[in-house]
Amino acid sequence: MTSDQKAPVCVLGAGLIGGSLLRAAADAGYRVWGYNRSESGVLAAMADGFDVTDDLQTALTRAAEADALIVIAVPMPAVDHLLGAIATFAAECALTDVVSVKGPVLAAAHAHGLSRRYVGGHPMAGTSESGWSATDSGLFRDAVWAVGVDPGTHARTWTRVARLALDCGAVVVPVTAEDHDHAVARISHLPHVLAEALAIAGAGGGPLALGLAAGSFRDGTRVAATAPDLVRAICEPNRDALLTVLDDMLTVLGAARDNLREQGSLVDLIAAGHDGRMAYETAERWEITDIRPGDHEWLERMRDAGRRGGVCTALA
Amino acid sequence: MTSDQKAPVCVLGAGLIGGSLLRAAADAGYRVWGYNRSESGVLAAMADGFDVTDDLQTALTRAAEADALIVIAVPMPAVDHLLGAIATFAAECALTDVVSVKGPVLAAAHAHGLSRRYVGGHPMAGTSESGWSATDSGLFRDAVWAVGVDPGTHARTWTRVARLALDCGAVVVPVTAEDHDHAVARISHLPHVLAEALAIAGAGGGPLALGLAAGSFRDGTRVAATAPDLVRAICEPNRDALLTVLDDMLTVLGAARDNLREQGSLVDLIAAGHDGRMAYETAERWEITDIRPGDHEWLERMRDAGRRGGVCTALA
Repeated sequence: MTSDQKAPVCVLGAGLIGGSLLRAAADAGYRVWGYNRSESGVLAAMADGFDVTDDLQTALTRAAEADALIVIAVPMPAVDHLLGAIATFAAECALTDVVSVKGPVLAAAHAHGLSRRYVGGHPMAGTSESGWSATDSGLFRDAVWAVGVDPGTHARTWTRVARLALDCGAVVVPVTAEDHDHAVARISHLPHVLAEALAIAGAGGGPLALGLAAGSFRDGTRVAATAPDLVRAICEPNRDALLTVLDDMLTVLGAARDNLREQGSLVDLIAAGHDGRMAYETAERWEITDIRPGDHEWLERMRDAGRRGGVCTALA
Repeated sequence: MTSDQKAPVCVLGAGLIGGSLLRAAADAGYRVWGYNRSESGVLAAMADGFDVTDDLQTALTRAAEADALIVIAVPMPAVDHLLGAIATFAAECALTDVVSVKGPVLAAAHAHGLSRRYVGGHPMAGTSESGWSATDSGLFRDAVWAVGVDPGTHARTWTRVARLALDCGAVVVPVTAEDHDHAVARISHLPHVLAEALAIAGAGGGPLALGLAAGSFRDGTRVAATAPDLVRAICEPNRDALLTVLDDMLTVLGAARDNLREQGSLVDLIAAGHDGRMAYETAERWEITDIRPGDHEWLERMRDAGRRGGVCTALA
């Protein structure tokens, strides 16, 4: 795979994640360029010395010529448009993305005839800020980066995507699109929904309640500061998985409400919640060292290792 | 009021809040001593040079002799026992507390014949840690400290409590017990309940989901790391107000679930949640300067000012 080491990278979208990826990949020695729709984003990136254009065709033609890895780094609603352009101008390029949901991107890549070269990705990093001004070359350091191991995944493309993630300072979690979307419904999309609901509850108490609010409210509502359109673009495409965990959440909270009303007790909720937080705090990543991309049943083995908490920290 | 300046303070309970108060008051020049039930807590405080005993009668007799301000700093379930001892050994002392709920403490003080000298307090500060080892003299710096303005509140005792809060670095929010309990149900107890429920949802996703969890899950579940008994002691005594906001929360989340299922949209939730968080981030405290404790209708005026976001940062 040495020929793929530090092959060029073309990033489509120079917002928080895409822009931070441009920075991190450049720092890691990759040749990088990008596309951004808004002129203000292009100018901001150029002012910082990055090769970013608002001409999608130019960026993609260059990717095709250089056999670059293309990274889709826009919210889900803008993905289809980019895939159409990629199918036209750079259909043979290796392709990944950093979108917050994986099933819909995989389906869209398939619809555009691009699934053969596509390996989904999702760095679990971000802030409530957005846009080029929020970009940070260290955003992915020590983060986990989900990389797809769906049936049919091409080993060489997978390695190229995983290498980029590792070179940006992340560790790689191998995961199928379906597993990913169910997991992030629990640990990313549901937290967003609860943060919004909690912010509504706090504001309903007026200046007194907001004035008394301290750490638990501040932390519990932090991500509600994220731009509303972005939160919608993150959560709504994962509708089915999010509905499942929202139904579970309503059941858990309804039971807690009933217990509080009838027995004056929240013991079941609090005991289980504490156990859950302890499981999170004590969860240990372990290193996947015995599975080489392309080996017999490597996709199934990677998937199973990821489900058990395994991560890749290096490539063979 | 000069005679009350830095009058002695007796703190009952040397956990996170009581112990931090011992430290902060000592740093501010107060003569302080305390009581703690567990010998390990007593030894830890003594090892740091603090005058803490496990003999409640001794601590209270000394408070009576020195006309100290007594501060109840134990979880709600232990309050009644302390009030009984105070009624026996130090019934004439000024009395406050730092308990997370105010109505039940006020009612208990009344039941013990101590309400005449009692002014409720609640510093809005804490961490998910507990015990003497977590104490910090800076815990109250720039925090808000709710101080009761219920009907019948004694102006001189109020001033003494407010002065202690200010000297510990906090600002004072004047609030009735009922208003306080409704407000903290929204901005403290509900965040605890949601953090527990979110931790349950995350852990339900197993090692994969917990391994992918990043900032939104970490922050949203932070307070679920708090000792379960302490969370129960914080939330359960505020049952009625918490039930009201829990019912509201179930309505809001249920509507969001229905909208997501039927329209694929979370727009209403996310727009209102973002507005709520912005209201929190932009809320401005203003200084109450024109109300002097003891003035005509000072309690009603203080209450109204607190409802509108007013704080006391100094005493006349």
